[in-house]
Amino acid sequence: MVKVAVVGASGYTGVELVRLLAAHPEAEITCLTARQNAGQAMASLFPSLLDRIDLICEEADAGAIAERADIAFTALPHQAAMGVVPDLLKAGCRVIDLSADYRLRDPEVYRAWYSEHGSPELLNESVYGLPEIYRDSVKKARLVANPGCYPTSVALALAPLLANELIDPATLVIDSKSGTSGAGRAAKVGSLFCEVNEAFKAYGVASHRHTPEIEQTLTDLAGSQVRVNFTPHLLPVNRGILSTCYATLRREHSTSDLLDLFRTHYRGEYFVRIHPQGSLPDVAYVRGSNFCDLGVVADSRTGRVIVVSVIDNLVKGAAGQAVQNMNVILGLPEHTGLGALPVFP
Amino acid sequence: MVKVAVVGASGYTGVELVRLLAAHPEAEITCLTARQNAGQAMASLFPSLLDRIDLICEEADAGAIAERADIAFTALPHQAAMGVVPDLLKAGCRVIDLSADYRLRDPEVYRAWYSEHGSPELLNESVYGLPEIYRDSVKKARLVANPGCYPTSVALALAPLLANELIDPATLVIDSKSGTSGAGRAAKVGSLFCEVNEAFKAYGVASHRHTPEIEQTLTDLAGSQVRVNFTPHLLPVNRGILSTCYATLRREHSTSDLLDLFRTHYRGEYFVRIHPQGSLPDVAYVRGSNFCDLGVVADSRTGRVIVVSVIDNLVKGAAGQAVQNMNVILGLPEHTGLGALPVFP
Amino acid sequence: MVKVAVVGASGYTGVELVRLLAAHPEAEITCLTARQNAGQAMASLFPSLLDRIDLICEEADAGAIAERADIAFTALPHQAAMGVVPDLLKAGCRVIDLSADYRLRDPEVYRAWYSEHGSPELLNESVYGLPEIYRDSVKKARLVANPGCYPTSVALALAPLLANELIDPATLVIDSKSGTSGAGRAAKVGSLFCEVNEAFKAYGVASHRHTPEIEQTLTDLAGSQVRVNFTPHLLPVNRGILSTCYATLRREHSTSDLLDLFRTHYRGEYFVRIHPQGSLPDVAYVRGSNFCDLGVVADSRTGRVIVVSVIDNLVKGAAGQAVQNMNVILGLPEHTGLGALPVFP
Amino acid sequence: MVKVAVVGASGYTGVELVRLLAAHPEAEITCLTARQNAGQAMASLFPSLLDRIDLICEEADAGAIAERADIAFTALPHQAAMGVVPDLLKAGCRVIDLSADYRLRDPEVYRAWYSEHGSPELLNESVYGLPEIYRDSVKKARLVANPGCYPTSVALALAPLLANELIDPATLVIDSKSGTSGAGRAAKVGSLFCEVNEAFKAYGVASHRHTPEIEQTLTDLAGSQVRVNFTPHLLPVNRGILSTCYATLRREHSTSDLLDLFRTHYRGEYFVRIHPQGSLPDVAYVRGSNFCDLGVVADSRTGRVIVVSVIDNLVKGAAGQAVQNMNVILGLPEHTGLGALPVFP
Repeated sequence: MVKVAVVGASGYTGVELVRLLAAHPEAEITCLTARQNAGQAMASLFPSLLDRIDLICEEADAGAIAERADIAFTALPHQAAMGVVPDLLKAGCRVIDLSADYRLRDPEVYRAWYSEHGSPELLNESVYGLPEIYRDSVKKARLVANPGCYPTSVALALAPLLANELIDPATLVIDSKSGTSGAGRAAKVGSLFCEVNEAFKAYGVASHRHTPEIEQTLTDLAGSQVRVNFTPHLLPVNRGILSTCYATLRREHSTSDLLDLFRTHYRGEYFVRIHPQGSLPDVAYVRGSNFCDLGVVADSRTGRVIVVSVIDNLVKGAAGQAVQNMNVILGLPEHTGLGALPVFP
Repeated sequence: MVKVAVVGASGYTGVELVRLLAAHPEAEITCLTARQNAGQAMASLFPSLLDRIDLICEEADAGAIAERADIAFTALPHQAAMGVVPDLLKAGCRVIDLSADYRLRDPEVYRAWYSEHGSPELLNESVYGLPEIYRDSVKKARLVANPGCYPTSVALALAPLLANELIDPATLVIDSKSGTSGAGRAAKVGSLFCEVNEAFKAYGVASHRHTPEIEQTLTDLAGSQVRVNFTPHLLPVNRGILSTCYATLRREHSTSDLLDLFRTHYRGEYFVRIHPQGSLPDVAYVRGSNFCDLGVVADSRTGRVIVVSVIDNLVKGAAGQAVQNMNVILGLPEHTGLGALPVFP
Repeated sequence: MVKVAVVGASGYTGVELVRLLAAHPEAEITCLTARQNAGQAMASLFPSLLDRIDLICEEADAGAIAERADIAFTALPHQAAMGVVPDLLKAGCRVIDLSADYRLRDPEVYRAWYSEHGSPELLNESVYGLPEIYRDSVKKARLVANPGCYPTSVALALAPLLANELIDPATLVIDSKSGTSGAGRAAKVGSLFCEVNEAFKAYGVASHRHTPEIEQTLTDLAGSQVRVNFTPHLLPVNRGILSTCYATLRREHSTSDLLDLFRTHYRGEYFVRIHPQGSLPDVAYVRGSNFCDLGVVADSRTGRVIVVSVIDNLVKGAAGQAVQNMNVILGLPEHTGLGALPVFP
Repeated sequence: MVKVAVVGASGYTGVELVRLLAAHPEAEITCLTARQNAGQAMASLFPSLLDRIDLICEEADAGAIAERADIAFTALPHQAAMGVVPDLLKAGCRVIDLSADYRLRDPEVYRAWYSEHGSPELLNESVYGLPEIYRDSVKKARLVANPGCYPTSVALALAPLLANELIDPATLVIDSKSGTSGAGRAAKVGSLFCEVNEAFKAYGVASHRHTPEIEQTLTDLAGSQVRVNFTPHLLPVNRGILSTCYATLRREHSTSDLLDLFRTHYRGEYFVRIHPQGSLPDVAYVRGSNFCDLGVVADSRTGRVIVVSVIDNLVKGAAGQAVQNMNVILGLPEHTGLGALPVFP
């Protein structure tokens, strides 16, 4: 039984970590922190936990956390995470960090898209926790940088094509759509029900901070520098990301051939599911689960391939992938505690 | 390991039974039937099951089902159920029927609200499967009539008040609101997205078929004939029922006293959660779970008590309660396979 | 052409006033104020107005407003309104106030449910602006207290029954459900998309501030003191209120007779529409319009009548009724500028 | 006063035509047809029209329609329209057809994407009714082919770029998202609330029938054959289309320069609104209106331009554009009857 802490438990990612870890047969939650809600019962913040989770939220103190937890999940905003993670490591915890702070290897890139980095020395050590691509590194990591939601959906969509050099990376266009829980639980006018419901918009066009993270992984896969257009949109749903990825094929392939390639590439991967030809994924069919569902179409008229990927942004895009990384580290089957089927409808 | 069949698997209740039974450590799904989709893979009807459920939907044949299953869950429309249930019983299955066909004890009442009953002799034998009220009878039942969604939410809200004779039953007003999955997966204009989204209406006012079912249980609890106004409304959400119940108190009680009474009444009930004073339940906080959350307020200005109850209509209102009934029958802890926390947000 | 100002233009009621007044053939908007957004173009706050409304939001200064406007619509929070309305009156404006500040005639009641009143001397002068009930008083009002959204839906539902003494007021139970725009545009966690979407809850049970306002009008109609249970709920839709009202009939009436009575009572009222027998109103069918649709059912089993009323909370429940009041004051046909049909779907 | 008929009034486009035409000062609706609902009051199909529209739906008979109407709006499914339109023309009506039947000039293309055409001789005569591009032809048209919703959003987004030869058409990628009213009011499982709500998917990838219509207009604008990837997605909103269009710029341009170009191109167009730099359109801000809002961003990192366009699919994407075409034909200001501001929220 591994003892775990959730640092920053009062957001949507926090409560999702608690939901998933409470169902995990090898993990015990021993500590929850939430600065603004310190002293309050977690179940009073989220009555979904009523009668089942009786932990009280605490202030985040690295020493106190490390005394009670082997692994700390840090679910803090970027820049807040880098204020806590180094201390947690020093105090002896393994850390699975769900912020953006340790995902980019190059501190210059971090500075360009975020700000000055507070602990750049950890960027070499941290491991990007996308097990389907970087599994071997994750196994021995002391600090896992849990991937962003959009980057997860994009990397899994494109890995088979880039790894097999089937597309011209310069032609990549990525059009993504995310549910609103991705914006967090902060009180902002733009996240109000009446602003999001019956609404739909693009945001962060040509400037979203997940762009360099996406490019870092795609560059690894392609073996050469990749630059993409990445356009996120805000969907009026609670959960779910769908990414529609376009690229020009280096030479003609049928949809059927490409699907075979995807199936081969992801053979044995529990969480990646390839839709049969003629079927396309829907965010509704992964809700609450750690699955990434993929659909592929080759368009012979234009010579492009279109890959559609869907995940639950709070699960495979955040808390679920974090638990999957914990399982990798602990040498457990990766779907331990993550086997529940999606909730439909 | 008990072998189970889901008869009528292609509706929302069917797929929810599959989701819950797949997570049940003591149950194995051996047979799925769906008349209109016979021959099709269940996972092609519901891609949420992709790669994890490989059963093919069959025609419903009682003998064939009984060969492979100890317990059959029948998730058919009322009147269709009574065409299959007697044969399943004869063939040796225990049956947990999720239709309305075996809930009303009096065939005259069934005739008045539905139509002529096809197997009235089973009405004496069938047990109304609301474990929190009729647990002892369920334990030895061969045929369980799984309660309706609205009646479950109402009976659990009012049981402590009626059993303790705190309210005048003649003053009961029940105002219920249900998510749209309660209307099923049939293609009807009234269930279209554009008709339900951004919409809200009452329906079946003074005439909904759950009225006699509600009255039957409340009459049991009160010990004398109860008649209620029951008004359902259609909510633009997938899942969830909220019932707001009003009654005049026989004598004054504080909210705090009433909450104590509720807590005492439901002590030891895993699935009934009482909100603390000042907090009221929300359907969002039971989503995907078998919980029934209750909130209570006494209004000294008018002498009434207001009880608010919420359930997930597909879980405690259908598939989850059916699995709970199976657990009762098998002598398992009632939350076996039903322990997952609600999915919020 | 009457010149009008909207004081407090940056909320949902404010932008709705601008939408309706822009379509009004006899009104010209000359001034918009919004304290926190002073200096910003109204169309930058609400791009729905792009290219068509070029007014800049100003600080609210009574003198400056009165120089440019004959009528001021004040769309401020309660207690903020009473800080501006007396000055506007003094400066010579007629005022149609959409806050709660001038609706309750008795300052003691205001104190009990809100706080100390700042200008109690105006409570005698102010006229409760529900034209279908208080039209004659509105005609000559200098200060109109525009009714609350819930009270409007309830008063119109019950007026024919109370005015004709058909029900026992002591048995009244009012169960209301409101779209989320009623909560305003303030950034609050409880109004976030992920908290409201796929959610539903009661709030303010036995304590909502619209209760005394409802009781004041029902008391006027009944001719004797009325106390009600009023329970509001939060609907996951942008716009719309539905109130389900229950009362015991003094003697038996058929649905058909009651509908005749409603039709007679509301003959000539442009904005009140009575559904034919067997049909019930839906908030979707009044969206964007000033209509109040009513449905009536008598339940002979319980001796109660159920009235269902729907309005668009931002129109008949706020901005539309305010414009209707302006039309009454100006002697215009009441539907001037309010004739657009509801937007469905 | 022009007399108009709506042929096929029982769908979402039909009721929207009625809503808009009822508000039109120069049009009088004299005839509504709806085959399956012949004999029923339009207001009983759509209670939004209660008390205000008293027309009864009739069978569609060309002669009877032409006797009462100068202009017929045909809102029928493709292939049904071509069974009625020739007769209406023969009987002397001008026809504004909202189906796809007369949009494609080349009957071979129609055959390839739809089926054999029944009246190919009319394809030469019919005018594609996108006034911002083909206004002069519309003025004298006897048969207007009202554009598809997706093609309208795409053509208006790309016209300034193609007309000024700023982009390489071979690089065009069009990612569109539509509200569910675009799927019509037919009872289909895929359009049910529980299938669309909290869901999001792509459909018709590389095969949607609007592709050749899009390409026809873009080819006109570019002056050479254009082929595009067009991917539609289904949004859980009632109304609204957002198209995100990507293309490689022939040479570098700043966002600011491109916005100037767009403003110049659309100078004087009432219904096209260009968002200022840094602001992007949202479907919520055009709801219920005939506006097309555009946002433009140049991405110097990749050399691409991204144009985001939004319309209300039932208004500028269907009924509103049809009324605009009528205004063009009648020589009225184009916004006659179409001046209402968007309904937000």
